[in-house]
Amino acid sequence: MARLLHIDSSALSAGSVSKEIAETFRAAWAQAHPDGVVTYRDLGLTPVSPIAEADIRAAFIPAEQRTAEQAAAAARRDELISEVEQADAYLFTVPMYNWGVPATFKAWIDQIIQGGRTLTFDGQPPLGGRPATVILAYGGGYGPGTPREGWDFVQPYLETVLGKALGLDVIFIKAELTLAERNPAMADLIPKAKEIRSGAHAAADSHARAVAARIAA
Amino acid sequence: MARLLHIDSSALSAGSVSKEIAETFRAAWAQAHPDGVVTYRDLGLTPVSPIAEADIRAAFIPAEQRTAEQAAAAARRDELISEVEQADAYLFTVPMYNWGVPATFKAWIDQIIQGGRTLTFDGQPPLGGRPATVILAYGGGYGPGTPREGWDFVQPYLETVLGKALGLDVIFIKAELTLAERNPAMADLIPKAKEIRSGAHAAADSHARAVAARIAA
Repeated sequence: MARLLHIDSSALSAGSVSKEIAETFRAAWAQAHPDGVVTYRDLGLTPVSPIAEADIRAAFIPAEQRTAEQAAAAARRDELISEVEQADAYLFTVPMYNWGVPATFKAWIDQIIQGGRTLTFDGQPPLGGRPATVILAYGGGYGPGTPREGWDFVQPYLETVLGKALGLDVIFIKAELTLAERNPAMADLIPKAKEIRSGAHAAADSHARAVAARIAA
Repeated sequence: MARLLHIDSSALSAGSVSKEIAETFRAAWAQAHPDGVVTYRDLGLTPVSPIAEADIRAAFIPAEQRTAEQAAAAARRDELISEVEQADAYLFTVPMYNWGVPATFKAWIDQIIQGGRTLTFDGQPPLGGRPATVILAYGGGYGPGTPREGWDFVQPYLETVLGKALGLDVIFIKAELTLAERNPAMADLIPKAKEIRSGAHAAADSHARAVAARIAA
């Protein structure tokens, strides 16, 4: 039975480009795995706690010696990590907020990365090779030659933390210029933005089929 | 009267290298500005909310048309932004968590960056030129030639968001190898780590004096 973990991190309940592209992925996935299990978290609606002192201390204290606060923190964290461990594939949607990932997505990352469990430095990462699709939505454009080249701290960061550190097999699907229709200064970019968005939907559809085919039903 | 805004983002209440170096800065600052006002936030102890839908919607709705939830969100955000606007200088402490800034610091960044208020693209950023000291604490080493070169998404991100976007005059004081004394694999780096840490304290002291001298009492 195919298990997909789907994490959304837009703060918006409606009008989120990244969530809409994820729906395209999910539809193709559901077709390939009608009996599959999808675990879903909407971090915008229900954020997870950022790493706090109790989380850090709990990691160094045997379970039976933890305070009630530390035990609760460890249980919350274990739930999040278990979801990651039990999945065959991942779908993450990450809009750019102020040139970085949303604070809610970083909080989730900090919760699920735990030395000795999801993270090892022995060259054999426990999650190594599992497919992760990351749908990125950027208000502007950050490609080579644009005025904001070098301001993208989303994709390079996720390549490092999800790809290099956790060992996931990461594919990015990116919709840039998502603010073109709302920002008058970007009006001439609207056709380009529409083209990018429809390309991202097509990529999400075909990529979902390709990943789904790799996972046993 | 000199006004300093001091934001800590370590999750630790004790044993935080970044907070300890900030104390050195604060002591020198207090000597230079005994009657100055310091506004302090400990994001580890008291996180600010990550940007949520109400925050985003509120920014596009006139005050008198906001829902109660949107009005509350706007008031919380206004308080945070006002603290930034009213300061003459900034002291930020930012430990590296999983190669990025703590989720709590990103949440604060997302709250205080508001188009038309703290952020403009007219070449005259409202906070332009104000001095910001950023104390970084990294568990490992990320310099040129180290195995983790290129994994630092803290300093380059803060150079962009605080320096280029907000226009602050940013100085970084960095303590690397903070995990040397706790990680057996880093035991041979302990002398180097101690040297770095004491250098960071000295830099914080002298830099605090230099910045303080630029601000009228």
